[in-house]
Amino acid sequence: MPDQSTTSELELSPDQMRRLVDQAMERIVPFIESLPRQPSFATERGVDLALKLLDEPLPDSGTPFSEILDLLFERLIPASFNTAGPGYLAYIPGGGLFQTAVADLIADAVNRYVGVFAAAPGLAQLEANVIRWFAEMMGYPAETRGVLSSGGSMSNFGAVVTARRARLPEDFLRGTVYASDQIHHSVLKACLLAGIPRDNVRQVPSDRSFRLAPDALAERVAQDRRLGLEPFLVVASAGTTNTGAIDPLQELAEFCRHQELWLHVDGAYGAFFMLTEHGRKLMRGIDETDSITLDPHKGLFLPYGTGGLLVRDGAALERAHSVHGTYMPPMQEDERLVDFCEISPELSRSFRGLRVWLPLKLHGVGPFRSNLEEKLRLARWAADQLATMPDIELIAEPQLTVTAFRFRPDALPESDLNDLNQRLMQAINQRKRVYLTHTWLNGRFVIRICVLSFRTHQDRMEACLQDIRASVDELRRELRSSGVS
Amino acid sequence: MPDQSTTSELELSPDQMRRLVDQAMERIVPFIESLPRQPSFATERGVDLALKLLDEPLPDSGTPFSEILDLLFERLIPASFNTAGPGYLAYIPGGGLFQTAVADLIADAVNRYVGVFAAAPGLAQLEANVIRWFAEMMGYPAETRGVLSSGGSMSNFGAVVTARRARLPEDFLRGTVYASDQIHHSVLKACLLAGIPRDNVRQVPSDRSFRLAPDALAERVAQDRRLGLEPFLVVASAGTTNTGAIDPLQELAEFCRHQELWLHVDGAYGAFFMLTEHGRKLMRGIDETDSITLDPHKGLFLPYGTGGLLVRDGAALERAHSVHGTYMPPMQEDERLVDFCEISPELSRSFRGLRVWLPLKLHGVGPFRSNLEEKLRLARWAADQLATMPDIELIAEPQLTVTAFRFRPDALPESDLNDLNQRLMQAINQRKRVYLTHTWLNGRFVIRICVLSFRTHQDRMEACLQDIRASVDELRRELRSSGVS
Repeated sequence: MPDQSTTSELELSPDQMRRLVDQAMERIVPFIESLPRQPSFATERGVDLALKLLDEPLPDSGTPFSEILDLLFERLIPASFNTAGPGYLAYIPGGGLFQTAVADLIADAVNRYVGVFAAAPGLAQLEANVIRWFAEMMGYPAETRGVLSSGGSMSNFGAVVTARRARLPEDFLRGTVYASDQIHHSVLKACLLAGIPRDNVRQVPSDRSFRLAPDALAERVAQDRRLGLEPFLVVASAGTTNTGAIDPLQELAEFCRHQELWLHVDGAYGAFFMLTEHGRKLMRGIDETDSITLDPHKGLFLPYGTGGLLVRDGAALERAHSVHGTYMPPMQEDERLVDFCEISPELSRSFRGLRVWLPLKLHGVGPFRSNLEEKLRLARWAADQLATMPDIELIAEPQLTVTAFRFRPDALPESDLNDLNQRLMQAINQRKRVYLTHTWLNGRFVIRICVLSFRTHQDRMEACLQDIRASVDELRRELRSSGVS
Repeated sequence: MPDQSTTSELELSPDQMRRLVDQAMERIVPFIESLPRQPSFATERGVDLALKLLDEPLPDSGTPFSEILDLLFERLIPASFNTAGPGYLAYIPGGGLFQTAVADLIADAVNRYVGVFAAAPGLAQLEANVIRWFAEMMGYPAETRGVLSSGGSMSNFGAVVTARRARLPEDFLRGTVYASDQIHHSVLKACLLAGIPRDNVRQVPSDRSFRLAPDALAERVAQDRRLGLEPFLVVASAGTTNTGAIDPLQELAEFCRHQELWLHVDGAYGAFFMLTEHGRKLMRGIDETDSITLDPHKGLFLPYGTGGLLVRDGAALERAHSVHGTYMPPMQEDERLVDFCEISPELSRSFRGLRVWLPLKLHGVGPFRSNLEEKLRLARWAADQLATMPDIELIAEPQLTVTAFRFRPDALPESDLNDLNQRLMQAINQRKRVYLTHTWLNGRFVIRICVLSFRTHQDRMEACLQDIRASVDELRRELRSSGVS
């Protein structure tokens, strides 16, 4: 018979709960306050650290919370990319709104189940409202259905599965998928997971602005039809990861309508710029597409862990996901209400709605919109600065908030440039005020600046440009001293 | 140009952060304290509530946090199944450990990215350690790889995709999958999502204890092979949702080895009972299988949102999930270290490791084990009590912590029993001390008692049995007064 003292140990007293939270907040608050002063990354000893941690056995006995907090806040958390800081201009920045941390504290503590409407009608409806707001932002109609997922990859997967089921319900092994060569790899992964043969995913060449070229697409689709294949899905980008390029959505929508192809938009990075005038101009036609991926943990500055998927034909989303068990509660028949387990791959899952709803409710949409406008302006400013710098080649002007560039001194041949720019990026990052990452465009190593944190303001962009200038000067001196120019 | 005051509004001051948390805790602590006194459900007006909420537009301006907390704690949260309370004996209870709420508070606030090892090596390793502990609990070898998912459905999906890729990498439309007729519907859904034709998923009849019968399985596999189909996957249950039945894992493992079939175990509900002696006896052979789903939000009492998947052949998991982008950071080459995005469908996602690691670290595994032992004992006790009650038919003795029964007064024909038991369940639940749900077994409506909350102790089980007795007596009086007996 188990010891009653240990079976009740997991249930904390009010004092114990408050103490845990107070102790955690004693570390969290100074941590967040110090974010602008923290280095932009500190992973040099990360592998050693991890290998030491590997020795940790399943704990037989407990450890005081203060020791755990020491380990986390003094050793493990600092040894990371500072993804929450203002200098994180890498990949696509996630946000880190503290408001969401509070939402999750509440959601976990009350532990309600929102996967089935009947189990928590009011809370499920909060989440449904968030989806409806997103649909309205995108110009989608009332019959739209959608879900909050764990991130963009899962949303893209949901879209691929929905399109496959809608267009090729049975044998889909001759089904083909189209995207530009700039598409995020999660789309390829979604196809892999959904069982679409790897050879059936076409990467159509993009144009000089890294946008999917409708002519090239049309040609490829026609060619595949002649071969007896079954084109069924086009995935457009509303903000590529490489350069923030936005495919010509309106033209694509027209083409896809005509060809009876499902048009999905991967707007994980860019879709929330629909809150800005600039974004609405660039994404004209997004309201004519079939489905959209959009990530609150990117464009709404939330912490990692919340993506979103909208599907214009809500019934198609349900057909791709609905399977029943005899032990399940009754599902809603009122069309205005939604059972998330019927339209998503998940049954049990966390209450993601609150972490999105709470920040929007607390602040209204205004500060989110102005932050996105500010990020657009900061990216434009950085590109303008880069344009004035000698020997800097702007590879991609910001369509949204990504700028891609490289250092190209006249004296050096093209073949040396990739190495040179790799060194330049390291030199910039070593100053640890910003963290930039690269990508490859047409065989060229290019450095990206992606502005998307609500913590990034003009001062950090100035620091970024200073560090680029100083690092370029440093490399120039090196090149001169080695006799190159 | 955006107003600087609104762009900085999202960044809270230390005082604002503390105030939000204090205000939330003022509601959370009394909420958790009052869980045992709260009704087991209060969803009667849920639809009205939700329909009213439907009118909520995207907020233009902010709302004071205190008003938001009023709405949540006074109206929306109470109008739910009390999934966190001790009387929740329905479906498979999720837990609701407050310790995990604190873990998520920290994880969200620091917003580190663990999907790629290089981005947060120490934190990624914490999560990897949790996976290793789980593998050790199951008796899996060192080369096991695994991930924490959002729940059992996603874990089962990962297993299906991995098995499909390992056994039928190209054309899998003739591939067939086997499970008992008691299998959780998420396995069927996983097959649907993975593109396995619906007709290729076999539900093999279970035996009188609701276990998959190896003979029936062997027969079906042989028959399918004769038809030119390609059997590739068997999914066994380690704790069915209906009755907690555990399939004969050792026999199945032998059969699958011989037939070169992938053997996946859906242990979402049951696998953590491997921490108990009773569980290890029942699940003998689990260490000889290919993959296991196991849900910390069930057997480790965490809040909703954390499932797990283990795959014995870690390389197979990677082959099913690995796709690269040119903008990605370098992946680890040291085999001891792991990039979660390489072995799971997700790229960005939350830091799920901390919410599992922290409670285990704080308390050691002891209280988890004794809680599971206590739940086994409580279920056994409830079954023994039911066995002494006249006209109660025990449909499933607890193998783990589910008991299924029905009321069967001699005077009534079989055809009346389903309705009668539906009314009995409602009568029990209407007392609101416990919440029970039903399932269908061989056409019979049966009432389930599933004990899995760390908050459920002997006192609540006594209340449950009192309410069953009282409700049976009530129905008996009704039957008598209508002249049935």
